[in-house]
Amino acid sequence: MQFQRVKGTEDFYAEEQAVQDRIFSVLDSACRSRGFLHVEPPVLESFKLLSAKSGDEIKEQIFMLEKRGDEELSLRPELTPGFARMFIAKQKEMPKPVKWYTINRVWRYEAPQKGRAREFYQLNVEMYGSSRPEADAEIINLAIACLSGLGLSSKDFVIKVNNRKLVFAILSQWIDPKMHDSVLRALDKAAKISPQEFDAELQKAGLTSEQIGVVKSLRISAPVNSFENLINPYCKSPEAINALNELKAVLAFVPKDFVLFDLTLVRGLAYYTGIVFEACDREGKLRSIAGGGRYDDLIATYGGDATPATGFAIGDKVLTLFLQEKGLIPKPELGPDYFVAPVDEKVFAKALEIAESLRAQGKTADIDVLGRKLAKNFEHANSIGARNVVIVGEKDLAQGQVTIRTLATGQERKVPLAELLHPKKE
Amino acid sequence: MQFQRVKGTEDFYAEEQAVQDRIFSVLDSACRSRGFLHVEPPVLESFKLLSAKSGDEIKEQIFMLEKRGDEELSLRPELTPGFARMFIAKQKEMPKPVKWYTINRVWRYEAPQKGRAREFYQLNVEMYGSSRPEADAEIINLAIACLSGLGLSSKDFVIKVNNRKLVFAILSQWIDPKMHDSVLRALDKAAKISPQEFDAELQKAGLTSEQIGVVKSLRISAPVNSFENLINPYCKSPEAINALNELKAVLAFVPKDFVLFDLTLVRGLAYYTGIVFEACDREGKLRSIAGGGRYDDLIATYGGDATPATGFAIGDKVLTLFLQEKGLIPKPELGPDYFVAPVDEKVFAKALEIAESLRAQGKTADIDVLGRKLAKNFEHANSIGARNVVIVGEKDLAQGQVTIRTLATGQERKVPLAELLHPKKE
Repeated sequence: MQFQRVKGTEDFYAEEQAVQDRIFSVLDSACRSRGFLHVEPPVLESFKLLSAKSGDEIKEQIFMLEKRGDEELSLRPELTPGFARMFIAKQKEMPKPVKWYTINRVWRYEAPQKGRAREFYQLNVEMYGSSRPEADAEIINLAIACLSGLGLSSKDFVIKVNNRKLVFAILSQWIDPKMHDSVLRALDKAAKISPQEFDAELQKAGLTSEQIGVVKSLRISAPVNSFENLINPYCKSPEAINALNELKAVLAFVPKDFVLFDLTLVRGLAYYTGIVFEACDREGKLRSIAGGGRYDDLIATYGGDATPATGFAIGDKVLTLFLQEKGLIPKPELGPDYFVAPVDEKVFAKALEIAESLRAQGKTADIDVLGRKLAKNFEHANSIGARNVVIVGEKDLAQGQVTIRTLATGQERKVPLAELLHPKKE
Repeated sequence: MQFQRVKGTEDFYAEEQAVQDRIFSVLDSACRSRGFLHVEPPVLESFKLLSAKSGDEIKEQIFMLEKRGDEELSLRPELTPGFARMFIAKQKEMPKPVKWYTINRVWRYEAPQKGRAREFYQLNVEMYGSSRPEADAEIINLAIACLSGLGLSSKDFVIKVNNRKLVFAILSQWIDPKMHDSVLRALDKAAKISPQEFDAELQKAGLTSEQIGVVKSLRISAPVNSFENLINPYCKSPEAINALNELKAVLAFVPKDFVLFDLTLVRGLAYYTGIVFEACDREGKLRSIAGGGRYDDLIATYGGDATPATGFAIGDKVLTLFLQEKGLIPKPELGPDYFVAPVDEKVFAKALEIAESLRAQGKTADIDVLGRKLAKNFEHANSIGARNVVIVGEKDLAQGQVTIRTLATGQERKVPLAELLHPKKE
C-alpha cells in the first residue's frame, strides 16, 4: 500500500522547492529593502480570534482541530488576525508605523481547483499607524516591487485601485446608504456576471431604474491620466471630493503605467475602509494576483486601540500560474559545485577532507557514499547536475594532486592538493 | 478584550524572528553545502500515515483535525513520515542517494514546559539509499557542521554515538533476545533514574542478578581513542565483532574531539536499526540538542521498496536555550541602511524617488509616511536602528543635493543627488 498526500496539499520536491525558494526570496528582499520586518505568528489560533473579524460563518472554511480542552483551535486561514493580535499585545511600546511581513502557509477548507488549494502560502504585509496616502502608496509600491522583482512588467499586470469612501460618497448622492452593501455586492460580481444579471441584482436590491442607470454609469475604469475627467461629474458632495482627493494623493506617489483606476473594485464586503487595490493579469486569464487596501477599523475590532492600517497579500498558487503563463518561472540550478569521487575505499578519508575543505570555503560539495566505481560516479554526478567532479585517486595523491573534470566541457585538469585545500584569497 | 496566543505556541516578533532567521540560515547553508536539497512535505498528513510507524497510541500526542470527510487528518508531529511518503512516491526514478532536508514547524500535543512547546521547528535531514558507514559519517558530520556553524565548539557539545546492532549482539551473548527490549528501555532511562531504580527495572524484566551485573558493566562511555579497549572484552560473537567494526568505520570519518562512544545510547525503542547518535550539552544541563541514526526498515514499513536510510533532527527550542546558555544567540541588526526624511510634504515625491533608488541599489531604505517634522523623524530613525538619515529639503534640492547624517557619529555630509541616485559601480 502506498500512502497518498492529503487532497488540496502539495509535495514540494527539490526542483519545485528551489523555484519556490527563489520566488519567496525575491518577495522577501522587496519587503526588507523597504524597511518591513519579518514576524511569525503561530499556525494555531483560537477560533474566537478568527471569528472576531469574519463572524461564526467562516467556520465552514476553516480547518478546526479536535477539541481537547476548553478552547476551540483552528489553522489560520489568513495571516491578518495573528498579525493584529501580535500588534495589539505590544502596540503601546512599538514605534509607529509598525511594518511587518511574512511568507508562510495558511489553510482553507475549500474545494481544490486550479489556482486554489487547501494548504498554500501567502505573502502577508501590514503597516500599522499611518492614515496618510503616503502609507497606501508605499504598500502599493511594495506590491509592484514584488511582482517586478519576479520579472513581471506593466505589460503583464496592472494594479486596479479604488477608494471605497469614494464609492460610498458617490452612491450617497443618489441611493439610500442602507442599499449600499447590496450595490457593492453587485459591483463586486459585475465582471463575472452578464449585464442582465447585474441589472437583476440591483432590481432585487430595490433600486429604481433611474438608480440602476446611475450605478451602471459608475462602472468606470481608466488610466491615471484620464480618470479625473470621467469621475469628476459624479463628485459633487464634499465627501466625494475629499475621497477623490485622497485617491489622487495616493496615485501621485505610484508609477502611472502600473495603475488603473477602477470604481467597481470594492474587494468584497470585507473589512476595507478606504483605498483598495488588486494586481490583475492584463490578459484577464487569472484571478487577482495580489490584493489589499486600508482597514482602519480592524485593530479596534480585535480589541486594540484604534489604529489606521493598510496592507496586502499575495498567494503562491495564482502567482505561480501567472509566472508559468509568462515563462518567468525561475530556473535554479540544484547541482553542487563539486562532486568528490574517491577512486576506491582507501582514499575516502582524503576525499572527505577535500569535500570538507571545499564546504568550508563556501562551495557546495557532495561526495560518494555508495563506494561506486568512477564511471558510475560520473553518471551520478551528471544526473544530479554537479558542475565538477573531483577525482581522488592514489596515483594523483602520491604526486600531491587530484584531477578535476568540468562536466559541461568534459575538460580535465590536475590541481595541486595544496591549492584546493588552501586556496589563495581571491 | 485582548486575544491571547494559543498555549504552547510562540509569537515571533521582529527581534526574535531575525534571530531565528539567522540561526536557520546557518543550518540551511550547512545542509546545502553538503549537497542536501530542500524539500517541503505538507503540514497536513493523514493519520494513517503517521500511525504506520508509531501505532495508534501516538494519537494522544497528535493534533487531530475535526473530521469532515472520510479521512482522519493530523498536523505532522515530525517530518520523517512526510519525507518517507514523498520518497516512496518517486523512489524508482530518483538517483540515489537522495539527500533531503527542511526546517519547518511540527506540532505535538504535550504539556508546554521549558524547551518543549506544542508548535515548534525542526531541522529534519534524511539520506536514502546508502547502507554504508560513509553515509552515517556524512550525517553525523552535518549535525556537527550545523552546531559549529552557530559558534558551538567541541567544548560545548559532544556527539554520543552507538550502534544498536552492537548492543543487541553483546546482550545476545548473555540474555534471551526476548528480554532485549526491556533492557534497552532500562538503558534508555539509565541517566535519569537512580542505580537502585535501574536494578529494579532489570529485575522486573526478569533478569538474573548475574545478568544484571553484565548489563551494569555495559554502561560504557568513552572517547573514540580509548573505547575499543573497554568494549573488546564483550565482543566475542561474529555479530558483535561486525557491529563493532561498522561503528569503527563510521567513527573513522568523524572528527574525534566531537565524539563520545556510549553503549547505553539507544534512542528509545524507536525505529532505529543501526548507528544512533545524540548531540549533548557537555555540561549536561539540557536535553539532547540533536538526535538521529540509521533506520533501514522505515521505507518498507511505509510500503516502499526496502531502502537503507539515515538522518537526524534538531529542534529549535533546546537549540535556542543552548545558544542562550553559551552567549551565542546571533545579534542581527534590524534597522535600515537609510531612513529618508522629507522636510515637508512638498518634497515627499523627491524623497520617495531617492528611497526607491536606494532600494534598487540593494540598500534597505525606509521613508517617513507620517508627515513628521525632522526632529521626530530623527527620534524615529534612532528607535528603529537606522544607520543613516537622508534629509530631503527644498534648499538642498535647489542645489542638487541632500544631507545625510550617520546616526552613530552624528556626522552630516552633503551628497549630490546625482551621486545618490546613480552611484558609480564600486
